Amino acid sequence: MSSAEFAFIDWLRSRTPAGQRVVVGIGDDAAVVAWPDPTHLVITTDMLLEGSCFRLAEAGARRVGNKAMSVNLSDIAAMAARPVAAVVSVGLPRAGGRALAEELYLGLREVADDFATPIVGGDTNSWDGPLTISVTLIGETTPRGAVRRNGARPGDWLIVTGPLGGSILGHHLDFTPRVREALALHNLVDLHAMIDISDGLARDLSHLCEESRVGAVVIAESLPIREDARKLAATTGRTVTQHALADGEDFELLFAVSPADGVRLLGTQPIAGLSLVRIGQFVEEPGMWLMEAGQRRELPALGYSHEFE
Amino acid sequence: MSSAEFAFIDWLRSRTPAGQRVVVGIGDDAAVVAWPDPTHLVITTDMLLEGSCFRLAEAGARRVGNKAMSVNLSDIAAMAARPVAAVVSVGLPRAGGRALAEELYLGLREVADDFATPIVGGDTNSWDGPLTISVTLIGETTPRGAVRRNGARPGDWLIVTGPLGGSILGHHLDFTPRVREALALHNLVDLHAMIDISDGLARDLSHLCEESRVGAVVIAESLPIREDARKLAATTGRTVTQHALADGEDFELLFAVSPADGVRLLGTQPIAGLSLVRIGQFVEEPGMWLMEAGQRRELPALGYSHEFE
Repeated sequence: MSSAEFAFIDWLRSRTPAGQRVVVGIGDDAAVVAWPDPTHLVITTDMLLEGSCFRLAEAGARRVGNKAMSVNLSDIAAMAARPVAAVVSVGLPRAGGRALAEELYLGLREVADDFATPIVGGDTNSWDGPLTISVTLIGETTPRGAVRRNGARPGDWLIVTGPLGGSILGHHLDFTPRVREALALHNLVDLHAMIDISDGLARDLSHLCEESRVGAVVIAESLPIREDARKLAATTGRTVTQHALADGEDFELLFAVSPADGVRLLGTQPIAGLSLVRIGQFVEEPGMWLMEAGQRRELPALGYSHEFE
Repeated sequence: MSSAEFAFIDWLRSRTPAGQRVVVGIGDDAAVVAWPDPTHLVITTDMLLEGSCFRLAEAGARRVGNKAMSVNLSDIAAMAARPVAAVVSVGLPRAGGRALAEELYLGLREVADDFATPIVGGDTNSWDGPLTISVTLIGETTPRGAVRRNGARPGDWLIVTGPLGGSILGHHLDFTPRVREALALHNLVDLHAMIDISDGLARDLSHLCEESRVGAVVIAESLPIREDARKLAATTGRTVTQHALADGEDFELLFAVSPADGVRLLGTQPIAGLSLVRIGQFVEEPGMWLMEAGQRRELPALGYSHEFE
């Protein structure tokens, strides 16, 4: 709630590279961002909590900082928007908080810099609890507007931007958010609906289906599998397909396009460094199904969810 | 990081009163806000942590929600900007988290509604730690621009919008952020510099002085004293002046205006419900001084600060 004695946020602000969107000024605890364009504003926020979203001892503070910025950028990517600026709130454990903060902020900065996104403000607190970080990003839509979850149509192809499953073995900390890829796709084809896979393919697909009021069929054999999903499956007794469907934190994009656009994308693979894979199709009947070894069965919305009592 | 099973945020969004700024759509974890004006964007974030910024058992979740929204609105007020939209991230304890969240969100909503500020997104998490809430507000400047901390000039009057001290006895949870008053003042006079008193009068004044590169003299006898500061002083052995200078969380505005504007404001008291008080003056020499019983002595930047090791 108050500024920290060691002014992390000022330190962060002072390191914003030249040429990034100008921060007009800092007044009180708010920042003023130049906002000349008559486009729409996109805003997203994600909180990471020690023990729930990461294990600090395992990950290290720098990678936690990477992840805190990247998960928010992934939400901006899911709408095919451009990031503009970030604010960061942290609750630091009192003991060792300063050293922790420095590593954490390095991690936040290196990802923000990769996406030319200045960190314009924040709030640094100390407390007796575990590390908690909340990042809020604002972004702007392109002239083509924001891609939402509600535009998938029966017959649309279901395409994913990369391999799935096993992210807990490292990918969930080290991924690169698909911001550039989303903008490139948005520029090339008419994206009917899009989401980033954070909670798990099946669960995130269920959001697309519900909000678009359509159903979907996923072809198990077509799912691109991350090598870590195979490693994990060898120890968990679950199949690689189950891992790909439900692990989550893949941070790949899942989107709907017309068959014509789908054919074009898969035929030309126009996005550098990306292998687009068709994993199924949207259908008129509400629901989700998995086709596996020639059998069609219902696909529950597997994936991560926070539980309360 | 993921959506909660009980979709608090959707519930919040669905209750946004008609007539508030239109949320164009919800896509993925980001919201799209219509942003037609070529004004500047203001963004602020504040995190509240159980045990550090409030005691849940004492305050109750609803008042914690009130406070989490109000401290952010107070930061917007300090720049004389208008709130536009809010996002809310929470980390809820697993046991009892749902009931807690409902009360918390009621508290967030009632303050947001008072200021016609839709809650357009957020992130609900559960964990084994204590309650943590982070609110981010975006706002827009008026055609007169944002008021910053760096415009105070030697000779300017130092004015405060209300009584100080003793906020820990209740005011820190129950205050009304000075958003409307700030806009009214901004419309009436040329506000050279402004801040809200969160860390304590002396500490927040030091920010105005440093950023404006001026000094200030505070007249102890002129400080408006909250009744709770007197109550507290009766038990702490400190003077009411000490409480007024250093307690913080008053969430009154502290600002600099020319003597001519100062005379006009104090003579007419044009802001309904507000008693503006002149408590000192800015001077050329950097530093801060307290005039008390005819004696001038140095005034340290007393107030709250987070400590790290």
